[in-house]
Amino acid sequence: MFKFAAQHKPGTAPATLVTPDRAATPPVITLIEYDVETIEEKKMARIEDLFGCKTSGKVSWINIDGVQDGEMLRAIGAHFGLHPLALEDVQNSCQRPKIEEYADHLFIVTKMVYCDEKRVASEQVSMFLGRTFLITFQEQGGRDVFEPVRNRLRNARGFARTMGNDYLAYALLDAVIDHYFPVLETIGEMIEELEDELLEHPTRDSVGRLHELKRALLQLRRSAWPERELVNTMARDEMGLIAHETKMFLRDCYDHAIQIMDVVESYRDLTAGMMDLYLSSLGMRTNEIMRVLTVVTSIFIPLTFIAGIYGMNFAEMPELKWRYAYPVCMVVMVLIAIAMLIYFRRKKWL
Amino acid sequence: MFKFAAQHKPGTAPATLVTPDRAATPPVITLIEYDVETIEEKKMARIEDLFGCKTSGKVSWINIDGVQDGEMLRAIGAHFGLHPLALEDVQNSCQRPKIEEYADHLFIVTKMVYCDEKRVASEQVSMFLGRTFLITFQEQGGRDVFEPVRNRLRNARGFARTMGNDYLAYALLDAVIDHYFPVLETIGEMIEELEDELLEHPTRDSVGRLHELKRALLQLRRSAWPERELVNTMARDEMGLIAHETKMFLRDCYDHAIQIMDVVESYRDLTAGMMDLYLSSLGMRTNEIMRVLTVVTSIFIPLTFIAGIYGMNFAEMPELKWRYAYPVCMVVMVLIAIAMLIYFRRKKWL
Amino acid sequence: MFKFAAQHKPGTAPATLVTPDRAATPPVITLIEYDVETIEEKKMARIEDLFGCKTSGKVSWINIDGVQDGEMLRAIGAHFGLHPLALEDVQNSCQRPKIEEYADHLFIVTKMVYCDEKRVASEQVSMFLGRTFLITFQEQGGRDVFEPVRNRLRNARGFARTMGNDYLAYALLDAVIDHYFPVLETIGEMIEELEDELLEHPTRDSVGRLHELKRALLQLRRSAWPERELVNTMARDEMGLIAHETKMFLRDCYDHAIQIMDVVESYRDLTAGMMDLYLSSLGMRTNEIMRVLTVVTSIFIPLTFIAGIYGMNFAEMPELKWRYAYPVCMVVMVLIAIAMLIYFRRKKWL
Amino acid sequence: MFKFAAQHKPGTAPATLVTPDRAATPPVITLIEYDVETIEEKKMARIEDLFGCKTSGKVSWINIDGVQDGEMLRAIGAHFGLHPLALEDVQNSCQRPKIEEYADHLFIVTKMVYCDEKRVASEQVSMFLGRTFLITFQEQGGRDVFEPVRNRLRNARGFARTMGNDYLAYALLDAVIDHYFPVLETIGEMIEELEDELLEHPTRDSVGRLHELKRALLQLRRSAWPERELVNTMARDEMGLIAHETKMFLRDCYDHAIQIMDVVESYRDLTAGMMDLYLSSLGMRTNEIMRVLTVVTSIFIPLTFIAGIYGMNFAEMPELKWRYAYPVCMVVMVLIAIAMLIYFRRKKWL
Amino acid sequence: MFKFAAQHKPGTAPATLVTPDRAATPPVITLIEYDVETIEEKKMARIEDLFGCKTSGKVSWINIDGVQDGEMLRAIGAHFGLHPLALEDVQNSCQRPKIEEYADHLFIVTKMVYCDEKRVASEQVSMFLGRTFLITFQEQGGRDVFEPVRNRLRNARGFARTMGNDYLAYALLDAVIDHYFPVLETIGEMIEELEDELLEHPTRDSVGRLHELKRALLQLRRSAWPERELVNTMARDEMGLIAHETKMFLRDCYDHAIQIMDVVESYRDLTAGMMDLYLSSLGMRTNEIMRVLTVVTSIFIPLTFIAGIYGMNFAEMPELKWRYAYPVCMVVMVLIAIAMLIYFRRKKWL
Repeated sequence: MFKFAAQHKPGTAPATLVTPDRAATPPVITLIEYDVETIEEKKMARIEDLFGCKTSGKVSWINIDGVQDGEMLRAIGAHFGLHPLALEDVQNSCQRPKIEEYADHLFIVTKMVYCDEKRVASEQVSMFLGRTFLITFQEQGGRDVFEPVRNRLRNARGFARTMGNDYLAYALLDAVIDHYFPVLETIGEMIEELEDELLEHPTRDSVGRLHELKRALLQLRRSAWPERELVNTMARDEMGLIAHETKMFLRDCYDHAIQIMDVVESYRDLTAGMMDLYLSSLGMRTNEIMRVLTVVTSIFIPLTFIAGIYGMNFAEMPELKWRYAYPVCMVVMVLIAIAMLIYFRRKKWL
Repeated sequence: MFKFAAQHKPGTAPATLVTPDRAATPPVITLIEYDVETIEEKKMARIEDLFGCKTSGKVSWINIDGVQDGEMLRAIGAHFGLHPLALEDVQNSCQRPKIEEYADHLFIVTKMVYCDEKRVASEQVSMFLGRTFLITFQEQGGRDVFEPVRNRLRNARGFARTMGNDYLAYALLDAVIDHYFPVLETIGEMIEELEDELLEHPTRDSVGRLHELKRALLQLRRSAWPERELVNTMARDEMGLIAHETKMFLRDCYDHAIQIMDVVESYRDLTAGMMDLYLSSLGMRTNEIMRVLTVVTSIFIPLTFIAGIYGMNFAEMPELKWRYAYPVCMVVMVLIAIAMLIYFRRKKWL
Repeated sequence: MFKFAAQHKPGTAPATLVTPDRAATPPVITLIEYDVETIEEKKMARIEDLFGCKTSGKVSWINIDGVQDGEMLRAIGAHFGLHPLALEDVQNSCQRPKIEEYADHLFIVTKMVYCDEKRVASEQVSMFLGRTFLITFQEQGGRDVFEPVRNRLRNARGFARTMGNDYLAYALLDAVIDHYFPVLETIGEMIEELEDELLEHPTRDSVGRLHELKRALLQLRRSAWPERELVNTMARDEMGLIAHETKMFLRDCYDHAIQIMDVVESYRDLTAGMMDLYLSSLGMRTNEIMRVLTVVTSIFIPLTFIAGIYGMNFAEMPELKWRYAYPVCMVVMVLIAIAMLIYFRRKKWL
Repeated sequence: MFKFAAQHKPGTAPATLVTPDRAATPPVITLIEYDVETIEEKKMARIEDLFGCKTSGKVSWINIDGVQDGEMLRAIGAHFGLHPLALEDVQNSCQRPKIEEYADHLFIVTKMVYCDEKRVASEQVSMFLGRTFLITFQEQGGRDVFEPVRNRLRNARGFARTMGNDYLAYALLDAVIDHYFPVLETIGEMIEELEDELLEHPTRDSVGRLHELKRALLQLRRSAWPERELVNTMARDEMGLIAHETKMFLRDCYDHAIQIMDVVESYRDLTAGMMDLYLSSLGMRTNEIMRVLTVVTSIFIPLTFIAGIYGMNFAEMPELKWRYAYPVCMVVMVLIAIAMLIYFRRKKWL
Repeated sequence: MFKFAAQHKPGTAPATLVTPDRAATPPVITLIEYDVETIEEKKMARIEDLFGCKTSGKVSWINIDGVQDGEMLRAIGAHFGLHPLALEDVQNSCQRPKIEEYADHLFIVTKMVYCDEKRVASEQVSMFLGRTFLITFQEQGGRDVFEPVRNRLRNARGFARTMGNDYLAYALLDAVIDHYFPVLETIGEMIEELEDELLEHPTRDSVGRLHELKRALLQLRRSAWPERELVNTMARDEMGLIAHETKMFLRDCYDHAIQIMDVVESYRDLTAGMMDLYLSSLGMRTNEIMRVLTVVTSIFIPLTFIAGIYGMNFAEMPELKWRYAYPVCMVVMVLIAIAMLIYFRRKKWL
């Protein structure tokens, strides 16, 4: 089912951060600092260790897996000057992808989609892009689409190292958006399979799976539409946080977002037609069953009636005594049956 | 059924206030006055007691439960300078959510939705936001989503106390809008239940409930769409009634309104597909019934026919006298039945 | 069926006025002149009697029932300086509601809808709003939604008397638009009735009525959409014919027009789903019929077959001579019937 | 089927004029020159005879029936300075209605629709409106909606004579657009007929005709939509070719175009619902047939079974020898039949 | 199935060029240089041979068939200053048609569609339009819609030779877009065939083909929509790469793109209705089959019952001994059958 932002009760104060369960796995904090020449990766135990990085002169990318700990969010927010309403959205995992401008940072919420045993699932990734830092929050650790980006950073001669934190934000966003494609590919394959099944031997189960598929597309569409808007807004940034060169790359990313929308809409169109495919296939089968019933009944009921007549016990039934009455009667029956078969064959019911 | 603004007869003068039934429960009037340091809650017996508050220097929130009393509305309107057309809309409970600018106050109409025994219902809440006061009208007392807001005001160190009446208006509006979420959650559960039912064992009743659900979503959509527009207009206020800081919060509220629309539209998409689910399930069942009928008929009708033949009374039927005619006949019948069964099994009708 | 502007043959000159049938009932002309202090109502026999009113200094409202008389239209048009194209539209009763600006007057076409024995019908009302006069044309007399407005004018202390002819135009337009509400109410009741009928015992007739309903909504929508646009354009008038205070009232009227559209669209959504309701109900009933047929057939056909076997006339049928063969056979039959019943009960077909 | 612009092979040069078949009927060229006082109509044999008219000081309307002759088009184009791309569009009869501005003339393409034995057909009419001339091209001669306009020109005191060639262009365009109305009227009648048929006794043929109707509406819509845009663009002309007074008339024409769209869309809505009407009617009939089958079968199969029992040849069947067994058996059968009838009547299947 | 841009793994660096398989067919490079007087066509073996053309003063059209070779793309890109992101799009064959402005060149991606044994397929064609050169990339060689354009260039007196590389770009684009028409024509014929089939004797296969058709239209629509946008953007070019005269031709090309969209949408509308056609035809046939079954059953079951009665073995059945009982019984049976036939004929079931 679709989840939505109902984590706090209606009427509670805005910007409320919660720490639902202390026993939950603690957040994993990683800091990557790099410039053209050096790169340093550190795992942090305490949040306070991060606070030096703001003035290091390098690009600082802080990645935090797990957003359950309200205390930690508050501490980071206070140090980096992040807006409390944005921090609330980090924790509330039912946001639509969006971008918001705050006094000195951009707040980006995006949805990382993936396929789990043929079910589409998504995880919220939030980013704060400031002048000198980039902070990313992932709902859970484990699943991570950022590894290829890290590898590009680690490559000493990589282009990524020559660019600022805005390019890093673009690269991460691009990784998230490009990750829609394998999901769409899986769905495309499922559609093709289901189409063949519906045309050839639909089962009760097919309809359930078609409905499942529609729902998955609905979900993808819900997160993909605003993704496109997000990239567009980011490319038009007027705060000076995004360099002109990065905007060129965002245009490319925007193209991908449009392609995703395009494929999602095409798939929706296809699945819409597939229910008709199923219903027509069902109708065709009922029709065939009826045909068999009608042919069998129409042939044997008249014959049974004739047999019934000569089973009557009237005292005076002259035919009963004729010598060849029985074989004649049988021949007549066979002729009737043949006539019927020819009639139905003409009607193309056989 | 949808109600609409037909409380006065077509052609009557605009801004007409009525007092349909004196015997109705009298309105309940509550005044909350607060500033950073103090808060005072009073229940008022007479409207005139309110009139001091306008110049108290504190934030005055007047809440009135029950809008039947035309006299009272007129008195309040006269004292606070509220526009007669707006007062008419307060009384006419079929408004769409909207915001209107008047010379020195904003008039806001919003819909508080709730679920009553799985039926969606709504109550109209109207607000007048002036320079120093906030007046809220609720159609009936009883149901109230404002209690959490009152509690936040009562909290001496609460953030709400430091803000003006514009923030209070936001907080109330936010409470109303956030209240869509539990309603949507209930509907989401009903959809899920109904989906399982439709896929597994649909009954006549299911269709009626599906129709009910569609209607509820239609109703939610009708009130949620303008809600979004309302918040947007309020956030762009140019009369100076809304402080810049409150606008930031309204942006958050706008996000929620969009999320609501999003979920409502997704649910509408889902329910649209559910009728097909039902029809296909029905078709599948008819198909199955036909299959049973056809198999039974096709097996026994030919056998009955054979029995009929040897029930005929022709004088000359040599088989009848053969010694093993009866067992042979029985074996033939069994073989025919088995052949039929194999045939139908091959066709996957069994 | 929908009527449309095909009263003159394609290719005839624009602004052609016709007088189709002299024998038709002559137009009824009424003049109401009022200012704050006095009001005067006159029935005019000749058009020329009207011509004094233009300079009377009071608000002059000329109402004409019946637009068949081309001569009369031409005379009025010439005296008041009305544009010939507008006059043609007065006579041609298939206009969409619209507003047009001419050099010194506004031309308004609107549709008065009403229910006639559960069928929606409409009548065209045209208005010319000049600096000092308001001329209204109604297709036919008889039906009139303006009586309440006249009463408000007659009321010596009424607010309406203090305002100009622009307010009068608003009041009449408002009366016309508010008259959609009772029509919608009737349709709402018909929808509710039909819904119950479709869910419980749909008949052939229901579908016809549903189609009728859809058509009525189509018609309402056709006239309501432009009505909204009309009011909006009028409220933004830049010719100075509409006073600022009246515009406030027009905003209220615009709200009503939007509400109407809203209800019409909701009803259209509802009726769209009702065909599915009918089809599913029909499918359910066919399914039930099939079930009865299948159960009856499946129980009795095997039994009849057994009876058939022992009706055969083979010389050697040992069972026939057994003493308890008959009761045993009967018991076996009953057991088979019971087994069948249990099977069908398990399948929930009974 | 829909035709489209595929007369030249992809890749050929733009603005290519062809003369497909010299043996085709030669174009018919007519010149009408008029001013307020005089009017002159001439049939031209050679194109060169036209070339004087450009400087005659009168309004020159050249009408050419038949556009097959590429040579002629080129000659006219060269003399009047018409753009080659426009001339190509004249010949290519699959244009959408459109208006194009060229250096010193407007190029208008419009579709004249008509009904041919209940099939909608269309013919392309192209116009070049220059400073002093108006050239119209019709695909074929024969069918002509311009005769009424010619008659208005011939009328010495007609308003049309006092206006320029822009008014003439309007008048012709208006004639073309008004010609949609009789076509719509025919379609409206066909819809009404078909509706009655579908509700009462639908045949296989009805569906084919409904499909035909939908296709006709699709075609009308395709040409009517751009017609509206065309008139609008023309009314906003900024080249000074259209006089202010003519623009007033174009506004009237625009109204008609909107009305046409409106009716076409309404008809499309209606026909969309008619397929449902047919399917429901079909379902209703299948349902009725099933009911008859089920009632007949359910009554006679149990009775036949009873008859079968007493047709068995068991030696020991005490009932057979009872004196009143036969009449009792018959009575029982009748009672069973009556019970069945009552049961089905209760179920409303009879 | 729809392909989409998933050639590189999510997270890889943007603008990555790959050379998937060295063994693939090497690209075919052709250079055509022309001015008004001369034209020269050369097949190039090495990319470096192209590099002279940039400063030749003539129009240089470089056409490259095959985009697999990443090295080659990089070399060309470096020499002509093409943007790496654009080069990546050249190689990635799943782009939507689009146009992008870079510092000193336009990048155009378009889709060449064609029909392969009644299946719609497409090939990506990319163009770089610089000040002095035009580079086109085709996914594969073989299929080529540019030959007619080459022939027009080869024609010494051709108009094309007098124009610059912008006109060449237009001519190629026009060739690509006009190539949609034969594809649409093929689809149009398939639709017509299928319509007849669905109305007269639909088979299981028809539905599959209808679905195929819908999918093809979906695909066409996906590439045709952005095609239109592309031409529009190109015609509004503000970089000065497109001459004013060429823009006139682009307007013509834009018209064609709109016509294509129009036909595609109309076809989609038609195919949408065709599923209903099929379902209704199927329903009609099931109805007919049921009618035969019901008539046969209703006639013979009562008769068989009567025969059953007189087959009973009651000792006392007076009728059995009557002399004319048998013929009377037969006559009664025939009368019953005739009555049934008349009844069904009245019901129009025969």
